[in-house]
Amino acid sequence: MLTVEFRTDPARVAELLPDGVGPAADDPGAVALIWADWQSCSDTFEEVLDPVRAQYKECFAVVRCQWEGETWSRCVYIWVDQDFALVRGYHQGYPKKLGSIWMTRPITVGRAGPKLESGGRFGATLAAGDRRLAQMVVRLEASATAPGFVNGHAMLHNRWWPAIESDGTESLDELVTMRGYDGEIGDVWSGEADLELFDSPSEELSLLAPREIIGGYYHRVGVSWNGGTTLRRTIPMEVERT
Amino acid sequence: MLTVEFRTDPARVAELLPDGVGPAADDPGAVALIWADWQSCSDTFEEVLDPVRAQYKECFAVVRCQWEGETWSRCVYIWVDQDFALVRGYHQGYPKKLGSIWMTRPITVGRAGPKLESGGRFGATLAAGDRRLAQMVVRLEASATAPGFVNGHAMLHNRWWPAIESDGTESLDELVTMRGYDGEIGDVWSGEADLELFDSPSEELSLLAPREIIGGYYHRVGVSWNGGTTLRRTIPMEVERT
Amino acid sequence: MLTVEFRTDPARVAELLPDGVGPAADDPGAVALIWADWQSCSDTFEEVLDPVRAQYKECFAVVRCQWEGETWSRCVYIWVDQDFALVRGYHQGYPKKLGSIWMTRPITVGRAGPKLESGGRFGATLAAGDRRLAQMVVRLEASATAPGFVNGHAMLHNRWWPAIESDGTESLDELVTMRGYDGEIGDVWSGEADLELFDSPSEELSLLAPREIIGGYYHRVGVSWNGGTTLRRTIPMEVERT
Amino acid sequence: MLTVEFRTDPARVAELLPDGVGPAADDPGAVALIWADWQSCSDTFEEVLDPVRAQYKECFAVVRCQWEGETWSRCVYIWVDQDFALVRGYHQGYPKKLGSIWMTRPITVGRAGPKLESGGRFGATLAAGDRRLAQMVVRLEASATAPGFVNGHAMLHNRWWPAIESDGTESLDELVTMRGYDGEIGDVWSGEADLELFDSPSEELSLLAPREIIGGYYHRVGVSWNGGTTLRRTIPMEVERT
Repeated sequence: MLTVEFRTDPARVAELLPDGVGPAADDPGAVALIWADWQSCSDTFEEVLDPVRAQYKECFAVVRCQWEGETWSRCVYIWVDQDFALVRGYHQGYPKKLGSIWMTRPITVGRAGPKLESGGRFGATLAAGDRRLAQMVVRLEASATAPGFVNGHAMLHNRWWPAIESDGTESLDELVTMRGYDGEIGDVWSGEADLELFDSPSEELSLLAPREIIGGYYHRVGVSWNGGTTLRRTIPMEVERT
Repeated sequence: MLTVEFRTDPARVAELLPDGVGPAADDPGAVALIWADWQSCSDTFEEVLDPVRAQYKECFAVVRCQWEGETWSRCVYIWVDQDFALVRGYHQGYPKKLGSIWMTRPITVGRAGPKLESGGRFGATLAAGDRRLAQMVVRLEASATAPGFVNGHAMLHNRWWPAIESDGTESLDELVTMRGYDGEIGDVWSGEADLELFDSPSEELSLLAPREIIGGYYHRVGVSWNGGTTLRRTIPMEVERT
Repeated sequence: MLTVEFRTDPARVAELLPDGVGPAADDPGAVALIWADWQSCSDTFEEVLDPVRAQYKECFAVVRCQWEGETWSRCVYIWVDQDFALVRGYHQGYPKKLGSIWMTRPITVGRAGPKLESGGRFGATLAAGDRRLAQMVVRLEASATAPGFVNGHAMLHNRWWPAIESDGTESLDELVTMRGYDGEIGDVWSGEADLELFDSPSEELSLLAPREIIGGYYHRVGVSWNGGTTLRRTIPMEVERT
Repeated sequence: MLTVEFRTDPARVAELLPDGVGPAADDPGAVALIWADWQSCSDTFEEVLDPVRAQYKECFAVVRCQWEGETWSRCVYIWVDQDFALVRGYHQGYPKKLGSIWMTRPITVGRAGPKLESGGRFGATLAAGDRRLAQMVVRLEASATAPGFVNGHAMLHNRWWPAIESDGTESLDELVTMRGYDGEIGDVWSGEADLELFDSPSEELSLLAPREIIGGYYHRVGVSWNGGTTLRRTIPMEVERT
């Protein structure tokens, strides 16, 4: 995973929070934009041997927020390049869309890439709708204990679907949280980063324009997931057939 | 759009119906497998001029069923090649996944394709997960009044999401219907068709193995959509935060 | 096919001509940027029924030049979205690369697109390397007899491969021409056009920056091809095994 | 890189050798089918930070042959997923086509994949034209000194283009060799492998049907390339303009 943390206008973050949820008490404009190259499987592990069903890349923007006295992380935008990850994301409360995601890989032999060492430089890009949306370069400086602070809390997500009537009512309106288990992290590095966001007529990412770069990070992570917790559910009105 | 209608084992159709919904009274094993090449836009029409945001192809299997004394059409499998159509499909109750869809196009000049005339032959293919799932050829014979009968009723769809707890409970469980308006149809042809379905470890389409081909169809259609009707909604139990 | 014709700096065109070939006598800065959505097949026509092997889109820039007293058309840049078309292009002297190409389609039913009539507006876009390179809109005004004048001559192409020694010598250096046969053209419309070209670190298209738009065109075309003519071949030095 | 070595009918290998080149003296039916996930760059290294221009995957079949008393390796089929690698391949004598290539990746944290250790299982698949062409699983057993023997010699390739006249004459007909430099290899493992090849109307890979599996391999490699050597060049007849 490659991460750049930066500060944007806190008002832009606040716009992306659901009713009843407020900005984080400290550093409310902090954003983490994270690129991840995953290998994923079910408990049978069978997808690992047919990797078109296991591997996907994603790029997602995480902010922090406050609800019921606690600080949470929240994914506000996310692009992914496989459908199984997209639909699983809707189950988990991630507002996934398709995108084209690329990340420099570290190498251990040869010369065509950086090694995991001070001075190693990694690039990452995001495109959707045949337009580039983001590009980032991080230059590793030193081993670190954590890949930033923005994506460090339990996630506070919406699961939301409007009624098929398309009349402004909702069929599903939940506030949920989720956390993985059996998490394992390795090879954490921090350093400097550059980030460019580009406008698109169909994407909102550039609304989170960076005012100041906090830092860049590389790390590896493995994690399992088998469910989350519904924190709040707004019951829709019963509907009679018309 | 290219359509092949065929009969499969009615038990395979019945397995795909929700609680309380039964098989169609007549010809309960009839299936339509439909390929469509769409151009789609919002009321601003702006997507039409940036067609990466407007065009998509899909392939979907439709069956008929009975509920509250009426006969309905129901989409049981569907693959699409753009994310905006995939997510809109979840709103409408279509269980969309990504696929690679190809269809022969009729031509009006040159020789590299069929014309819309008796004897014209059109192919259509579907793949997902780097495996071919279906291939079909239809040979036009005569103008027709309708492109088959299976996809001719109002749609009866589920909108369904399990709770994030992944404990067997549902957060959303609706039976909905939808129909377009301002529909316009043109160039309807019927003929003979051949169909092959292929097994895949991650797809179920081949469960609907054809026992008998009913016919093949070509037609053009334009339609608008702005919502549907919730027919039945099962209210989930209220959940307290744990 | 959708075409925009425009004038760029004639010096940019001249840079793209091979040795011994000069600029066109009149209007030497004229360029046609053409989007095409093809269905293609061999003499067996079998690919038409397996259209993943038949259909492709391309976007290409054509200029005019002069050689041996005649005026020729010449394709200087071209992007295509299928490999069979890419490699066939190398055989024909087209310098093809992969790109993502989209074009508005005319409709005959419904509302989600333009009809082939005065006022109909069509968009076309090109991307490569996850960056948009070009976008164009043409607004039809009237039926026309030809879709512009830049792409109207026999093609003057290079077929060129450097020696594997990568030492500045060539293994293949030909000037060739080609023309289709059994050409058939239909539905020619002309109108106004807007064009934007975008910079990319790996593409040169924006060097042909438009100074003035000449016009926009829509047309349909069918054509067969079975070879061309070698006009000039520079024989490489014989090489002994070292 | 993941490799499976197997024996096919030697007659199938012999069919793929150019004039004057014969089968290898020992084990003439040996084939290596190799999947590779590359990061590639020029001497500026700039592509590494814009990885859509640097990363590609390929799957290729290598056989051995004999020419002028020496044994050579020869790539007879190859599929790749990026255009820059495809065209560079034509320069090097690789008959590249586009394909969809997937390979299990080893992991160092978490559980969603194999580690580089005895018992680790890796899958690899190849598809083209929306059809799966090959799938392979290798189970690592022990560290090894080399990833097989078939791809261990200097490459003996053709560079070949027919004349644009499409009349059976050639414009370019070379026998070339190439070898990288600054090669570095790491993490070589050998083990058992299973391989399945599938028929396709447009691909020939399944002609190399496996009769016996030799073994499977994993390794990492880095290599530089800046040219090869032309071993034999057949000079085409001079052509006059007609």
